[in-house]
Amino acid sequence: MTDTYFTRRTIRKYEQREIDNDLLERLLIAGTRSSTTGNMQVYSIIVTRDQVMKKRLAPAHFNQPMVTEAPVVLTFCADFNRFSLWCRQRNAVPGYDNFLSFMTAAIDALIAAQTVCNAAEEEGLGICYLGTATYNADTIIEVLELPKGVVPVATVTMGWPALVPEQPDRLPLEAVVHHEKYHDFTPRMIDDLYRGKEARADSMQFIAENNKTSLAQVFTDVRYKKEDNEYFSEKFLEVIRKQGFMPH
Amino acid sequence: MTDTYFTRRTIRKYEQREIDNDLLERLLIAGTRSSTTGNMQVYSIIVTRDQVMKKRLAPAHFNQPMVTEAPVVLTFCADFNRFSLWCRQRNAVPGYDNFLSFMTAAIDALIAAQTVCNAAEEEGLGICYLGTATYNADTIIEVLELPKGVVPVATVTMGWPALVPEQPDRLPLEAVVHHEKYHDFTPRMIDDLYRGKEARADSMQFIAENNKTSLAQVFTDVRYKKEDNEYFSEKFLEVIRKQGFMPH
Repeated sequence: MTDTYFTRRTIRKYEQREIDNDLLERLLIAGTRSSTTGNMQVYSIIVTRDQVMKKRLAPAHFNQPMVTEAPVVLTFCADFNRFSLWCRQRNAVPGYDNFLSFMTAAIDALIAAQTVCNAAEEEGLGICYLGTATYNADTIIEVLELPKGVVPVATVTMGWPALVPEQPDRLPLEAVVHHEKYHDFTPRMIDDLYRGKEARADSMQFIAENNKTSLAQVFTDVRYKKEDNEYFSEKFLEVIRKQGFMPH
Repeated sequence: MTDTYFTRRTIRKYEQREIDNDLLERLLIAGTRSSTTGNMQVYSIIVTRDQVMKKRLAPAHFNQPMVTEAPVVLTFCADFNRFSLWCRQRNAVPGYDNFLSFMTAAIDALIAAQTVCNAAEEEGLGICYLGTATYNADTIIEVLELPKGVVPVATVTMGWPALVPEQPDRLPLEAVVHHEKYHDFTPRMIDDLYRGKEARADSMQFIAENNKTSLAQVFTDVRYKKEDNEYFSEKFLEVIRKQGFMPH
């Protein structure tokens, strides 16, 4: 298995160096060879290389510097627009204006996205997923002129690594993997699984910097807050509705 | 770049041969090294190897033979259960009972899923995604005993290829990739992009077998029908609600 599966880390600082057109095209072709529901390919990939467009996209991603600094920004979208156009042009009535079709298309988009990322890392490129694609999908739709039937689900910045951070920790495998049935966690299991993460120097620092008493509070009170999640939930549901995936 | 990105195809027939425990573990570790929102790892992977469990899962996947024939079935789930348990145990109030958190967790799960698939194919294994994971998530929840906060989003069957079909076609890259902005399609562009697919012998055969006048009608009237999509939309939304991701 390629070493990068195990050695990779998210890269947020890139060299000022372009990604060759041929290399980018090969990465995108690799993406399109991935699994896709019924071979419908109900997704699209918007490539942003133009500096003006990166600046216009940046606010949607809370102006994280990766967006304007990376040579390539990729926006992966659930897309039933092209497929439905084809259907209508062939005397077929598309029935994809519903939530299941949105999920199907989002899954297609994410499968392609992760293949592009794995292939890119194998070539020495660094990538960073921006969760903000779902937070501010409305702005992205406006900037990239996405028609009805198209919803962004993931944005990836990509470039040659200028700064390779330490590899972050992960929970022990048994936190994530269940055999045969889901084995729900006892309080002691939770303690055991999170002990390593909680003992890290950077975790201690996060707690101190944010005046919290536990690392979990840094997540719930600072980084991923209930009120933000609820605000962006409504916003994203409205986007799904507006783009035609929830008729009621 | 690894050759399998370009030569791969979905594998639905497997040898009667186990996947070594160590190999499977390495694949799962590769998956957990993938990008995850805020390093929360809000997903889980249920490994099904037991024949009795495969038989119990099969109806959820419309009894497609891959489920009972593959040595390994993997169910990738959006999972805020473990993370929320940790929060509550640390005097932190989790705010993840909303749609955005479901999307975040689903994205985490799908990123991990596709890395496992890419790594598996590099090792010579074959995989097949089953779209039915979202169709019949309710049955899967019951069989795998998934608690509140956990929703299956993708099922993958995996094994050593016994039958390698011809590589399926894909649309020209320009059907999927847009530069800088989404360039919506004119009727002529749709004709051009779908011409290759429509001219294939297997497409002609699908049309004839189903008594249709176009390949698109095979999708809209037979394979991915509006009424089915709407039925499974309601069902999946109800699952999301029941698992605690839509409080209203």
